Amino acid sequence: MRIDIITVLPEILESPLNHSILKRAQDKALVTIHIHNLRDYTTDKHKRVDDYAFGGSAGMVMQCEPIDRIITHLQSQRTYDDVIYTSPDGARLAQPLANQLSLSENLIILCGHYKGIDYRIREHLITREISIGDYVLTGGELAAAVLTDAIVRLIPGAIGDEQSALSDSFQDNLLAPPVYTRPADYKGWKVPDVLLSGHERNIREWELDQALERTKRLRPDLL
Amino acid sequence: MRIDIITVLPEILESPLNHSILKRAQDKALVTIHIHNLRDYTTDKHKRVDDYAFGGSAGMVMQCEPIDRIITHLQSQRTYDDVIYTSPDGARLAQPLANQLSLSENLIILCGHYKGIDYRIREHLITREISIGDYVLTGGELAAAVLTDAIVRLIPGAIGDEQSALSDSFQDNLLAPPVYTRPADYKGWKVPDVLLSGHERNIREWELDQALERTKRLRPDLL
Repeated sequence: MRIDIITVLPEILESPLNHSILKRAQDKALVTIHIHNLRDYTTDKHKRVDDYAFGGSAGMVMQCEPIDRIITHLQSQRTYDDVIYTSPDGARLAQPLANQLSLSENLIILCGHYKGIDYRIREHLITREISIGDYVLTGGELAAAVLTDAIVRLIPGAIGDEQSALSDSFQDNLLAPPVYTRPADYKGWKVPDVLLSGHERNIREWELDQALERTKRLRPDLL
Repeated sequence: MRIDIITVLPEILESPLNHSILKRAQDKALVTIHIHNLRDYTTDKHKRVDDYAFGGSAGMVMQCEPIDRIITHLQSQRTYDDVIYTSPDGARLAQPLANQLSLSENLIILCGHYKGIDYRIREHLITREISIGDYVLTGGELAAAVLTDAIVRLIPGAIGDEQSALSDSFQDNLLAPPVYTRPADYKGWKVPDVLLSGHERNIREWELDQALERTKRLRPDLL
């Protein structure tokens, strides 16, 4: 997979994309991630990529031209499955969408900033708008990092223990059951007996009961 | 405001917390953000903070002791409004919760990793579990960065143009209207005439109509 991320603040993305699973996935050549500084694609001599909003609203708007130039440039080199814009009014990211996107070959992710991008880019060049949640962030960079992480960890080989990804929350529409590790008694806080029993079948039943109970109580909408 | 973030991968948080609005808010002393490496709080000579799950499930679990030690240590120094654990089965982060948390004085954010933390920590020390969305990430670090960004940008003075934050999506339960900037005609893609008209009242009406129309079409659940 190849992911091209377009941003005005490439430095924000440095550490999240170059550690842990995302680093390992790149080292193993499961994914290549290219960060593009939008300012390299403006013809403005001061490298400005934003301007005042028409109509007098507060906040600056990212201009059409540099975005059009970089997306057109990338698309002239290969075919992209999607040109994604991270925006609070996009489709809400959830695990099935992450699963689907993890099958892509090439993705562009455009990070919004300031008051957002000129709407004409959204009408003409963006194929998919994604929101990571119903809250506003300073910019689209963290959303792009979240999206990249959620997608890349699903590529076979990206995380060591594939069984572990399959038993995550959401993959079966259930919250994960509680987990415990040593010691069995920490300051009087005890691990449930069944987990220490060694009865494989009882343990699996307990886990499923707990997953169901927690989902019913905390997230009945998932059932 | 003071935010203490506890993590096994402090390096992931470096760049998101030290650029743009989050850097400016720290420079202006609106917030201090302290990153703690959980490994500094283990008594294990190999600095291990995880162990196998009881019951034989796949994936490693973060142990009670180091987490208990650092939280207890921090709480001995000041009172915290909340001890937050970022987890996919927590309460879903949305703008009203970000608004509420932005009024806190001191917050601890514990980043989960591996298969999660020992459940006893959640029962005894965590006061609030927050999910940034219905998807699984490699670790809680990006969730902590997202949460921190969503909260800190709301502190008065953190973003330059406060009017701009008030007109964001979600603050009035409406998606933001489309925004446009120069040029008015880009390759034949035109800005709506009303925005060029100079009629303040017509412009505000158009914006409200658009916000309502977009919310009805894309996110009827918000209305």
